[in-house]
Amino acid sequence: MFIGLTFFQFIFTQSQEDKMIRRIYDEALLRGHAYEDLRSLCKEIGPRLSGSSEAAMSIRWSEQKMHSYGFDRVYLEPIMVPHWERGNPEAAWITHPNGILEKINICALGGSVSTQGMMEGELVMFNAIADLSKAKPKEVSGKIVFINQPMNAAEIQTFKAYGACYPIRGNGAIEASKLGAKAVLIRSLGLPNDDFPHTGSMRYEDSIKKIPAAALSTQDAERIADLLASGVSLTFSMEMDCRNFPYEPSFNVIGELLGSKYPNEIITIGGHLDSWDQGEGAHDDGAGIIHCMEALRILKVLAYKPEHTIRVVFFMNEENGNMGGKTYASWVKEKNEKHLAALESDRGGFTPRGFGCDASDSIFTKFQAFSPLFEPYDLHLWERGGGGVDIGPLKEKFTDIALFGFIPDGQRYFDVHHAESDVFETVNKRELELGAAAIASLVFLMDTVLF
Amino acid sequence: MFIGLTFFQFIFTQSQEDKMIRRIYDEALLRGHAYEDLRSLCKEIGPRLSGSSEAAMSIRWSEQKMHSYGFDRVYLEPIMVPHWERGNPEAAWITHPNGILEKINICALGGSVSTQGMMEGELVMFNAIADLSKAKPKEVSGKIVFINQPMNAAEIQTFKAYGACYPIRGNGAIEASKLGAKAVLIRSLGLPNDDFPHTGSMRYEDSIKKIPAAALSTQDAERIADLLASGVSLTFSMEMDCRNFPYEPSFNVIGELLGSKYPNEIITIGGHLDSWDQGEGAHDDGAGIIHCMEALRILKVLAYKPEHTIRVVFFMNEENGNMGGKTYASWVKEKNEKHLAALESDRGGFTPRGFGCDASDSIFTKFQAFSPLFEPYDLHLWERGGGGVDIGPLKEKFTDIALFGFIPDGQRYFDVHHAESDVFETVNKRELELGAAAIASLVFLMDTVLF
Repeated sequence: MFIGLTFFQFIFTQSQEDKMIRRIYDEALLRGHAYEDLRSLCKEIGPRLSGSSEAAMSIRWSEQKMHSYGFDRVYLEPIMVPHWERGNPEAAWITHPNGILEKINICALGGSVSTQGMMEGELVMFNAIADLSKAKPKEVSGKIVFINQPMNAAEIQTFKAYGACYPIRGNGAIEASKLGAKAVLIRSLGLPNDDFPHTGSMRYEDSIKKIPAAALSTQDAERIADLLASGVSLTFSMEMDCRNFPYEPSFNVIGELLGSKYPNEIITIGGHLDSWDQGEGAHDDGAGIIHCMEALRILKVLAYKPEHTIRVVFFMNEENGNMGGKTYASWVKEKNEKHLAALESDRGGFTPRGFGCDASDSIFTKFQAFSPLFEPYDLHLWERGGGGVDIGPLKEKFTDIALFGFIPDGQRYFDVHHAESDVFETVNKRELELGAAAIASLVFLMDTVLF
Repeated sequence: MFIGLTFFQFIFTQSQEDKMIRRIYDEALLRGHAYEDLRSLCKEIGPRLSGSSEAAMSIRWSEQKMHSYGFDRVYLEPIMVPHWERGNPEAAWITHPNGILEKINICALGGSVSTQGMMEGELVMFNAIADLSKAKPKEVSGKIVFINQPMNAAEIQTFKAYGACYPIRGNGAIEASKLGAKAVLIRSLGLPNDDFPHTGSMRYEDSIKKIPAAALSTQDAERIADLLASGVSLTFSMEMDCRNFPYEPSFNVIGELLGSKYPNEIITIGGHLDSWDQGEGAHDDGAGIIHCMEALRILKVLAYKPEHTIRVVFFMNEENGNMGGKTYASWVKEKNEKHLAALESDRGGFTPRGFGCDASDSIFTKFQAFSPLFEPYDLHLWERGGGGVDIGPLKEKFTDIALFGFIPDGQRYFDVHHAESDVFETVNKRELELGAAAIASLVFLMDTVLF
């Protein structure tokens, strides 16, 4: 009898869960707001770099949207953010030995200093940042360093290929400056062969002279590499007008469905509201914040009463400082909230493949047991890992918090990442909606089964 | 000792297979020809409906490409194909009761008769083809029937949603004509809300009057449905200039790597070379034939010597008659070939999700055991089913043949299927390349393990 009862209970529970997940997907696919909300964010506001007017607009926009969806509480969390501006569009060209000029598209890396007017220098190329580190000062001094290290297209997991190249962008200026270079150019961290330079964050060290840093499109990088490899000497001319301003006030935007049983036990879901200043931040990370807001909207519309408080956070400043994520973690800790879990979506609005989970073995085992519920939805990845830049700082404050990362298909992400091409048109409606439904479904299971 | 030895052999074999698959993916992703070949097919030839000059060009193009890749044998198989032409672009408008005209984009369904000049009639709408079947002649007679049945967006498997709507396009003209309608308009079988009508095959019955049949874009369908639902009476005016010509000669294009052990035992892989006359047939089925040709090229370049003969077939006329698939099956049977297996790719050039297999239990069990080899490549579907229109007729001739179907992600397919929007730009390079690699890997395993 006992076995029979348990079996019956299991079937009943499964069936209730199946039904709720099916209702979530129906709402997302038949009556979803995700696509129109993302259109509005991308087209009516556009790019929203921390400290920009558009970032301020996007904060208002987010607050209004969350109010319109009737979340129980909507509020702003004050933070301070760095403020960097690209200034006038960059200009650059190469001068061939015979005097012919060729225009080159460059874009300053985020945080770069300006060139202080026109800067010129002989190009010296390295095929990898490791080669630059081994170079002698006399090879580099007074020149403009060009690091032509491509992302590895043979790597199936594009985020791994990106991670392997990240030091080029992050440390290129430091390594080149140590050897006396005037400036550093990097091949964009992007996979396609096209003409969009990809920006992104870079670092300086206080003790090392700050030199300008910019990205070339992969097409220009190949073109210049071919010329240099053929023994031609090239002069590179560039002007970048970037400026750093003092830190300034900004906000994380927060919306909540209050827990009916445990209002003080929190599950946070979110992404980042800021974006780079090129393109529209459609996949990075418009899609992520829309996923999470839509997940909350769906739960609300389905009249779901969560046991725990489900909180959506639109973090500000993930791209160049992560002040939103850091401040949020400290603030939650100070308030002495019980923080159960956090989920981040910051890998674009593509077809869902699954989730990563960074948690205790017992939570992870339960998490993996969700897998059959999602087979009809083609989610197959239930793996270790997860988290992300915005929710990472929570782990430092709450060692037993469970972090989750949404994993969409990653093949197209580095086509558009941090480039002018990251626009609304590259986001597919169904793919975006399926992401919101997958996240809402996992949040529902976290709330009812996991905690 | 015995167990030890078996274990050792297993590890060794796995490792050799892993290595070969990795080499296949490297070739596809680092030195692949798929994307440039598809660009050439789409941009230098374009759409290639059976019987058109472009179809003839595409046969030459395919033969030359296969020769250039050094396949052991390249040849043409003569077939006869239907020849239908759209003629001048269609024109249509609605006339509002107050006399205002509104232009409507329509496209003739493939095989439709012309309107014989301008045709006008009152619109009568049905929300489903089932409702039309139940209608009385007096409701329909002398009118233009509009079937506004949408694909079910809540269905996760888009091919299922398509399958459920297929009778609208296939039988709409027959059902409407039975009741005396002048013409039939259908809401396009497409998922997005946009302004591209989607064409596709339709049928007539000899005993029932042939009436013109056309598709409306989903946007126009919604617009007209709203007007009709509000009680407005609308006159629809349309002109279509389509013509059917006699059957004419054409070809399947065939390339082979000859089997080193069993040259008379055949594994066929293929897709269809023909496409509809709108767009460029990029996903349907440019991607599919390029997948298969690239798979054979990769095996050749890696100096792989297949045990069985691997044959790539570019079938002609899948879209409106399937004469390529039918003729091939008969021809293979007549030649008394031993035909082990066939694989089809005709679901677009999207990120691979897995394969379907329609075979004996013993073959299917072995097939499913491949799954771990493909985990690093994110292929998770190893399911019953598979095959396709082109290779289906083989099953009738060889009851024990194993059929396989390539399953890419299906979320974007019905955005572009049979519409002007099915162009090269909608195909992603990495996604296409991963498909070719997945197919080449499975063919390698079929050749070495399965048969």
